[in-house]
Amino acid sequence: MSKATIKQVAAEADVSTATVSRVLNDNGYVSPEVKERVFAAIAKLNYQPSAIARSLKQDKTFMIGVIAPDISNPYFMGISRGIEDVVGPEGFQLLFCSSDEAPEKETRLLQLLHEKRVDAIVLATSGGSAAAIDALIGNGQRIVLIDRRLEAGGETPALDLVAEDNASCAYDLTRALLDDGHVRIGIVNGLTRVSTGRERLEGVLRALKERGVEDKLLLYSGDFSTEGGMRAVRRFLREKERPTAIVSLNNRMSHGVLLELVRGGLRIPGDMAVASFGEVEAGQLLKEPRLYYVDQAPYEMGLRAGEILLRRIRGENGAHEPANEIFRHEIKQMH
Amino acid sequence: MSKATIKQVAAEADVSTATVSRVLNDNGYVSPEVKERVFAAIAKLNYQPSAIARSLKQDKTFMIGVIAPDISNPYFMGISRGIEDVVGPEGFQLLFCSSDEAPEKETRLLQLLHEKRVDAIVLATSGGSAAAIDALIGNGQRIVLIDRRLEAGGETPALDLVAEDNASCAYDLTRALLDDGHVRIGIVNGLTRVSTGRERLEGVLRALKERGVEDKLLLYSGDFSTEGGMRAVRRFLREKERPTAIVSLNNRMSHGVLLELVRGGLRIPGDMAVASFGEVEAGQLLKEPRLYYVDQAPYEMGLRAGEILLRRIRGENGAHEPANEIFRHEIKQMH
Repeated sequence: MSKATIKQVAAEADVSTATVSRVLNDNGYVSPEVKERVFAAIAKLNYQPSAIARSLKQDKTFMIGVIAPDISNPYFMGISRGIEDVVGPEGFQLLFCSSDEAPEKETRLLQLLHEKRVDAIVLATSGGSAAAIDALIGNGQRIVLIDRRLEAGGETPALDLVAEDNASCAYDLTRALLDDGHVRIGIVNGLTRVSTGRERLEGVLRALKERGVEDKLLLYSGDFSTEGGMRAVRRFLREKERPTAIVSLNNRMSHGVLLELVRGGLRIPGDMAVASFGEVEAGQLLKEPRLYYVDQAPYEMGLRAGEILLRRIRGENGAHEPANEIFRHEIKQMH
Repeated sequence: MSKATIKQVAAEADVSTATVSRVLNDNGYVSPEVKERVFAAIAKLNYQPSAIARSLKQDKTFMIGVIAPDISNPYFMGISRGIEDVVGPEGFQLLFCSSDEAPEKETRLLQLLHEKRVDAIVLATSGGSAAAIDALIGNGQRIVLIDRRLEAGGETPALDLVAEDNASCAYDLTRALLDDGHVRIGIVNGLTRVSTGRERLEGVLRALKERGVEDKLLLYSGDFSTEGGMRAVRRFLREKERPTAIVSLNNRMSHGVLLELVRGGLRIPGDMAVASFGEVEAGQLLKEPRLYYVDQAPYEMGLRAGEILLRRIRGENGAHEPANEIFRHEIKQMH
């Protein structure tokens, strides 16, 4: 005779599995009459107490939700692949959701994944969902932050985080241009309600201030999108005093910057030097692609996030000290 | 007083919601004692029969699963955006899964999404899951095929399909090169266990045969991947009689073809003409990007798939005649 499941016990007793669980754990009110039915069912099905305990403990769906602002961005796909290479062999599947940088959509997706009882959520937040996250954490949902911090705010629970040292990398990137003699620099900025946007801008400004050229900067908000990068270039080229270099603060915007410079017939870096936070694969199609870039490591970040996820799901983290893994990358030049 | 939910009724009666549903529908055995408890709970909470009926009928999760071989491919993302723009305003959320062209992973993902009771699955199949699909359809799961057909096989149920006229488009694409005088053509082939791979190759071969140059062809399997496109170019360039043109049968492989040609210092189309099934955005970074390409319409395909999904979920399709929407695209040249 095969071993009975908690479902069979519940069916036999004509109660929900939650009620069986409450009876077994002596946790929450259950009427004496119902308790008796549950114990009768356990006896009838010859249920092993240890098997019951295990099946109750193994309350897993083996799904991990991943919410990213743009799941088609190779950066987030690299992260996802790293996560999957760690959790996949343990039987977990990833479900991806795109928040499109829309905080209200992110909140809906968090709720949805929680309702579907995913074992954990990996979140690259677009901001605005701190309250929802608080509530989910309160309900026992595991959440690991990737790439982006929650907004600073007293109530926010300390969560596991795998991110980059954005300010330092952006500082180094800007320094590369300054060291080449550039003074007038156009900055294609991300979304400053997002931590990566804020921190990267902070690093750029620090480098410019150190050299005393912060009054020469041109700032354009590119919203982390390819189109934003294209608009920024058009805007910079209309300036009376054109910049000689551009710092673009994510890979999508950098792609747009390159597209628009090439369309405008400008040589890179002859007519305009470019420095990108993150690699742009397509840049290799340029004739002379001497871009500076922050050499990100999304796959390795994903591996770390995957390990943290597994530890959390297995409950190995003891005192629940949140992980805080910050990657610092080198500046490289394409050639 | 706010309206009670079926969950509250179940909690009040200390039974599962499934039991409440069985009682209300008089469907399946429920002991008289439990029935009494359920009816007492309904009375106590002043439950509206119509509200109950609605909540039972509205057996929706408002989730639609999307399984694609590579969700980071801009083509599949375009399709997804089209679907979302139709179903999103109706309250549906998309969950994305990447099958990585692995049939066994696709089968697992189909099973997982079905267990999570998604309202429908949109599938760009990597093949090999016909049996699983049969079983799911038998269990009432709605499945809409996008981009790729199921393998030919007697048992396969007729499913809704939104796809492209792959053979005709590939024929036209090859004709563009032949009309320019090319004879020796390298073909970067996709996966022929996938319908798009098979049909596109068929179209290319038809065009070559018509001109009587099929014995001049070079065929390399690029597996629909960027790396495959790069390997194909390296292989073609080692030929004693080098091709003067390359037909690449998806956008990823075309991206790889361009990268490798540029790395090798070849001018396009001066040293090597290129024709791509699908646009390659990065191609605009080339100095002289005169590529031929099939001007695909993934977003529009997604819109159609979204409309079909809504009709299916709402049960409006009457006799369940499967949709069969085939898009035929024009050949364009980048400039």
